Amino acid sequence: MGKDLKVVVIGGGSSYTPELIEGFILNYATFPVREIVLLDIEAGERKLNIVGALANRMLQKSGLPIKFSLSLDRRSALVDADFVTTQFRVGLLTARGWDETIPLKYGMIGQETTGPGGMMKALRTIPVLLDICQDMEEICPDAWLINFTNPSGIVTEAVNKHTKIKTVGLCNAPIGAYKWLSELLQVPAEQIYCEFVGLNHLHWITEVFVNGESVLEQLLDNKEGYSAKNVPQSEWNASLLRSLGCIPSYYLKYFYLQQELLADQQEAAARGETRAETVQHLEDELFEIYQDVNLTEKPKQLEMRGGAFYSEAAVRLMNSIYNDSRDIQTLNVPNNGVLDFLPAEASIEVNCIVTKHGMLPLPVSVVPTAIKGLILAVKTYEQLAIEAAVTGSRDTALLALAHHPLVPSVNAAEQMLDEMLLTNKKFLPRFFQ
Amino acid sequence: MGKDLKVVVIGGGSSYTPELIEGFILNYATFPVREIVLLDIEAGERKLNIVGALANRMLQKSGLPIKFSLSLDRRSALVDADFVTTQFRVGLLTARGWDETIPLKYGMIGQETTGPGGMMKALRTIPVLLDICQDMEEICPDAWLINFTNPSGIVTEAVNKHTKIKTVGLCNAPIGAYKWLSELLQVPAEQIYCEFVGLNHLHWITEVFVNGESVLEQLLDNKEGYSAKNVPQSEWNASLLRSLGCIPSYYLKYFYLQQELLADQQEAAARGETRAETVQHLEDELFEIYQDVNLTEKPKQLEMRGGAFYSEAAVRLMNSIYNDSRDIQTLNVPNNGVLDFLPAEASIEVNCIVTKHGMLPLPVSVVPTAIKGLILAVKTYEQLAIEAAVTGSRDTALLALAHHPLVPSVNAAEQMLDEMLLTNKKFLPRFFQ
Amino acid sequence: MGKDLKVVVIGGGSSYTPELIEGFILNYATFPVREIVLLDIEAGERKLNIVGALANRMLQKSGLPIKFSLSLDRRSALVDADFVTTQFRVGLLTARGWDETIPLKYGMIGQETTGPGGMMKALRTIPVLLDICQDMEEICPDAWLINFTNPSGIVTEAVNKHTKIKTVGLCNAPIGAYKWLSELLQVPAEQIYCEFVGLNHLHWITEVFVNGESVLEQLLDNKEGYSAKNVPQSEWNASLLRSLGCIPSYYLKYFYLQQELLADQQEAAARGETRAETVQHLEDELFEIYQDVNLTEKPKQLEMRGGAFYSEAAVRLMNSIYNDSRDIQTLNVPNNGVLDFLPAEASIEVNCIVTKHGMLPLPVSVVPTAIKGLILAVKTYEQLAIEAAVTGSRDTALLALAHHPLVPSVNAAEQMLDEMLLTNKKFLPRFFQ
Amino acid sequence: MGKDLKVVVIGGGSSYTPELIEGFILNYATFPVREIVLLDIEAGERKLNIVGALANRMLQKSGLPIKFSLSLDRRSALVDADFVTTQFRVGLLTARGWDETIPLKYGMIGQETTGPGGMMKALRTIPVLLDICQDMEEICPDAWLINFTNPSGIVTEAVNKHTKIKTVGLCNAPIGAYKWLSELLQVPAEQIYCEFVGLNHLHWITEVFVNGESVLEQLLDNKEGYSAKNVPQSEWNASLLRSLGCIPSYYLKYFYLQQELLADQQEAAARGETRAETVQHLEDELFEIYQDVNLTEKPKQLEMRGGAFYSEAAVRLMNSIYNDSRDIQTLNVPNNGVLDFLPAEASIEVNCIVTKHGMLPLPVSVVPTAIKGLILAVKTYEQLAIEAAVTGSRDTALLALAHHPLVPSVNAAEQMLDEMLLTNKKFLPRFFQ
Repeated sequence: MGKDLKVVVIGGGSSYTPELIEGFILNYATFPVREIVLLDIEAGERKLNIVGALANRMLQKSGLPIKFSLSLDRRSALVDADFVTTQFRVGLLTARGWDETIPLKYGMIGQETTGPGGMMKALRTIPVLLDICQDMEEICPDAWLINFTNPSGIVTEAVNKHTKIKTVGLCNAPIGAYKWLSELLQVPAEQIYCEFVGLNHLHWITEVFVNGESVLEQLLDNKEGYSAKNVPQSEWNASLLRSLGCIPSYYLKYFYLQQELLADQQEAAARGETRAETVQHLEDELFEIYQDVNLTEKPKQLEMRGGAFYSEAAVRLMNSIYNDSRDIQTLNVPNNGVLDFLPAEASIEVNCIVTKHGMLPLPVSVVPTAIKGLILAVKTYEQLAIEAAVTGSRDTALLALAHHPLVPSVNAAEQMLDEMLLTNKKFLPRFFQ
Repeated sequence: MGKDLKVVVIGGGSSYTPELIEGFILNYATFPVREIVLLDIEAGERKLNIVGALANRMLQKSGLPIKFSLSLDRRSALVDADFVTTQFRVGLLTARGWDETIPLKYGMIGQETTGPGGMMKALRTIPVLLDICQDMEEICPDAWLINFTNPSGIVTEAVNKHTKIKTVGLCNAPIGAYKWLSELLQVPAEQIYCEFVGLNHLHWITEVFVNGESVLEQLLDNKEGYSAKNVPQSEWNASLLRSLGCIPSYYLKYFYLQQELLADQQEAAARGETRAETVQHLEDELFEIYQDVNLTEKPKQLEMRGGAFYSEAAVRLMNSIYNDSRDIQTLNVPNNGVLDFLPAEASIEVNCIVTKHGMLPLPVSVVPTAIKGLILAVKTYEQLAIEAAVTGSRDTALLALAHHPLVPSVNAAEQMLDEMLLTNKKFLPRFFQ
Repeated sequence: MGKDLKVVVIGGGSSYTPELIEGFILNYATFPVREIVLLDIEAGERKLNIVGALANRMLQKSGLPIKFSLSLDRRSALVDADFVTTQFRVGLLTARGWDETIPLKYGMIGQETTGPGGMMKALRTIPVLLDICQDMEEICPDAWLINFTNPSGIVTEAVNKHTKIKTVGLCNAPIGAYKWLSELLQVPAEQIYCEFVGLNHLHWITEVFVNGESVLEQLLDNKEGYSAKNVPQSEWNASLLRSLGCIPSYYLKYFYLQQELLADQQEAAARGETRAETVQHLEDELFEIYQDVNLTEKPKQLEMRGGAFYSEAAVRLMNSIYNDSRDIQTLNVPNNGVLDFLPAEASIEVNCIVTKHGMLPLPVSVVPTAIKGLILAVKTYEQLAIEAAVTGSRDTALLALAHHPLVPSVNAAEQMLDEMLLTNKKFLPRFFQ
Repeated sequence: MGKDLKVVVIGGGSSYTPELIEGFILNYATFPVREIVLLDIEAGERKLNIVGALANRMLQKSGLPIKFSLSLDRRSALVDADFVTTQFRVGLLTARGWDETIPLKYGMIGQETTGPGGMMKALRTIPVLLDICQDMEEICPDAWLINFTNPSGIVTEAVNKHTKIKTVGLCNAPIGAYKWLSELLQVPAEQIYCEFVGLNHLHWITEVFVNGESVLEQLLDNKEGYSAKNVPQSEWNASLLRSLGCIPSYYLKYFYLQQELLADQQEAAARGETRAETVQHLEDELFEIYQDVNLTEKPKQLEMRGGAFYSEAAVRLMNSIYNDSRDIQTLNVPNNGVLDFLPAEASIEVNCIVTKHGMLPLPVSVVPTAIKGLILAVKTYEQLAIEAAVTGSRDTALLALAHHPLVPSVNAAEQMLDEMLLTNKKFLPRFFQ
């Protein structure tokens, strides 16, 4: 990794790209990117051109000597890459719509990162990412793969298990937690230390130190918890927080409040509303704005899109790897004994030291008894989902669903699976050979 | 443990007692009991007298030199005991009725050994059993406690964690599995070796050898699985069995077919039927029969009661301990590393060598990835339920429910818990101090 | 494994063979051998013929319908084998002499099963045994390999790591311990339960129960320990036994009394005496006796040979496998978590249940802190010695020696290793390619 | 820990103190010490006064507002302490002389941090340090104990096991390794990342990265290894380094070259030379120099004393704790799963993140098989030595020696132990009650 730093953005036509470009510009002093390629597939060419033009205007305005191009040819784009980031969605928002609605018919949560919908997203995404890694192994074997693509933990575990590419999974939730706490406690984020325990979209904050002193107790009285724009809000149960002794991620509402969230989703669906559709409207608006040839910076409206801080997290990570910074970031990496009830190769979301030679996960000081079962139950599903994605086995996919805590019947799951497989057929070549 | 073997049967007025007495008579040659005391509480005196009279007639007929008595005084009954067996139900069938019906109102499975109902049974039972153990520590500290009382795994773990009494938890399911296989395969049970993995009422049979050869594959084609009279029957999903590669216990239908069994229970409740009521009728009939002064043997009707083989299992276990037989039995004992994703002290249901100096759990050759999550999830609940029973903490009880795989909402669980606690108030002194 | 039981004895010309033949005759009722082949190499033909003739006379006298033959052709001998036993010595007693004398020059213990000498024996033996297993994989893949060949633990681990053959390692020390205790305590061996912890030739007896009661304390006052004919006797240090709280195997004198035993060996060597020579004399005498055509039974003199009970142990083991007896025997099998500070695949010497589908190691109830380090130190050496034997790497062989507790200098070890390799050149083809 | 930072230096009269004072002065900007107390015992008053006067001159010259005092009263000195450092030697250099010479008579290495001598030092030191901690628990329970006192790993483990005081063990070897590599490779130490595996005075460097690239291979060709003034030098065996694949600490020569170093020590002793005497001469010279009233800085001669960088390491550590720096330092902390073959509470020497709320050990990427046995063997001895120190049990002390890799006979060890105990009687009150 020399001075001619090259970054390839897979899914470059994403609406998030301007944030990433802004990040490269702001961090140029310490992370001197010399070349950026936005890569996408043919079906995404129109969006790529719109976002690409905006990115180009932003870079022009910055005056920095960064070579910039758009590409539809993955193999040539990857030549000499130092970092490859991913932020694509196989099947686009249409497939997300299926993930969010089909399960509802069978009395189950419809969500794109966990449950039946999350599994379908994994089945669509993993083979594509493994293909990318196969190209990387050949063309840029030493490059880092920075994976934003959801379900981020599962996808990262699949890459670690089935390829030799160095990879890290990223989520915006941990950085969001620090921002929430910084505002709540009125201290700079740098003075806060949070301990995260769990998996991607299934973590708990088990300790919060400010300048070496724990402030966890006072936070447990704050029933609102930390939250995000794309997850329905309900207040946490006060008794639960008290006895749990840690702060659940907002994604845990799908588990602790499954009944309520299912009812909400079913109502919304009855009204014809899904998160996929809401996002589609936001995206349409954003691309409308992006086309403004006078726009030369990231527009404010992007912040409403839900994935806030993703790009901040990504640029921070690449910066620390490049500079061997050895600072602490919360990442998705192989467990390797940090959680002693999980397999060594299981991807977990945990504090890590970021070095140039790899991520070093930090030990966790405490894992509440109460959360171990749920973590292993979801990890069990994740392992099986990866196996199903790689082998294209319907039986294994059903086994994964049968052991997911949000699936209350293997028989219902079987019917649902058949419907989902058929609907997603175009994106599941391994299942339909 | 000398030649004057004394057995104390706690809950001696149970309808199961004649089976136990028959076991002592049949095994007298190798397990020469010299004294049997049937012990019960005052509320059970009538039943104790009826069963006691029958037991007395059985022993008289046998002509064996066994001293026999009934007692309502625990401390004097325990003097010089070598084995203490338990088969009582705190709150009797009335409380079982609550366990089976209250959860239904909140959209949850009502069952007396797992889920919300199982937890309530644990909360009622554990303090009573710890009291018994406290007496034993004082009066007969070297006696073995053979625990049939459900939820047997949880209760056994509580005794191991909180007392010094040597105990083993027993269930009739493993012995039932051997009988099922013996009939199905037409080989004596002694030539069969089953490997059990899991917890009480949550186990899978992961291997079956006949004369050293595995017959698992052919069994997985047998969709009916093994079953029992007190669990509703549904055929197992064929794809599930195939990909699981092992045979689930019939209790696992509450997890794999939660949706269906909940619907069944709700329908039955709507018709005014519960398992508690069915059992009450059976019991009434049995006691009617027991009163027949000409009856001098275990009546056939007892076999319909559901707990078949319990006594056979109990006598076999006591016999092997007494004789240091070192044979293999499937028992509930501390994990101690057999399942590496569970705590050392967690009670598991596993093959053991029975020696006079204790039970030695055998290693398991394989644990399918798919089942680990569910096992740890239920064990998590069990650990919390024990803590709640011992401390009388409502918060901990809610924490236990919130992490039970059959509980889909912590908020609904909170309301349900409050109703259940209030209903069971009489039997939960630690919660109402 | 049907009724036509066939056993192949590799190293059939060994002086131990008559004991094995006696075992087959005595156990015929439960272990009905139909065919025995004594197999040896050409260099051993003379001994094979002498022992073979005696064995034949013994079998004739028994009148049992056992087919019997001698063979120098391994591949044809292995056809249809159910059990293959090994009791050979690569390099014969000459090589043993080297193992016992060369280390002395460098100030180190010379012994044929541990230390530098033990490693050389492993380097000579492992490749030969792996060759045998390769033939077995092809010709009789389901046969059991019962390995008596020393260093038995190391050799068994090598077979488990590098072949698919089912194997068990056997030593006469555990059975000897039971016989010692039976005589000392005046109770039948069947009423005794010893817990063994450690490796082959490196175990401690951590518990002794008689009829379920521990008698360990009284044994710790017995300073003589248990012993064997082929290990020099010194009294154990009383303070050591007291604080250790368990009974060390007599082989542990090489470690706890290294200084003294080294001095003894150096004195004996100065007088021109080695164990190899003593054994050579015994062997010569035995073969003289075996040639007596009137001899039709195992001669008494064989008991002085040192390997007493080896054959008893072997026949007992084969009998239990054949009959799926599920009794407890102390064997060398893969660790699989029994000792949590050792790798899963490490061969350990531990109580096992013998079933027809394999050996199931029993958990150990206690491992004294004091012995863990020595166990792992020796296991470290063993793992490296296996690697050296398989790869023929001099560097790895030196690494093994450098980490053996009986080797006080890597530089001296290097010189010694070079001398030993050269002396053993004929038997180490992988080191001299 | 506020702005009024107070540091108490136990063993303040040590010749190392000027280096520590220099460190406080140089780091004042980030670590603003407001008060320093040099504490010593009455027997050390003369040295305390000499060193104290020099320290005072150094502080005066700096012009910094640091309150400074000398004290012989521990309890008053500890009031309001934030950091307590220790650098004392119970029994002074006289006792060190015993540690280095008595074992030689019995044919064993004489060394003050490992082997029989190291154990005696632990037996003398641990009770004193536990007394200090008892005072701290009462007077300054939140202060950090920074322990330089040897044997540092053992002593730190004793404090962690037997007190509630937050402590870290420090050694100058890791910082010395960085300085050696920085000079050898001609890169700033900050660009180097070394992975340390093992215990205090028993570690291996298993990886060295410079700017994210491994340079280990080239270092393994450098036979001299890294070394220090107070350990005899011999070149490492080239084959050993090659097959080991990592760099042994110079203290490992006592294990890998025991024979040679023992011979060296015996020769030196025959000539009347011991390290204790050499050090005594150096100390005498240093105190001569310290008395020069014109001296106002750390004299150059101190660097020859052997403990170079100790103070640098200590100030760096306190600075990072105070500032919550979250940088990486190599420290002695509880294992907690980092090395999976060691107990959780075992003190290991490993890279840690230093935070204000504690040390977070980093995972190790590889532990060569070859070194595990030696590590556990020495840790076994360490655990027993701690137990002996705390209980004052001669049997346990012998058990510790019997399992130390440098002790070749338990019988010889027993005689030696009795001589050492008697000689050290004055400093071993727990052994002579």
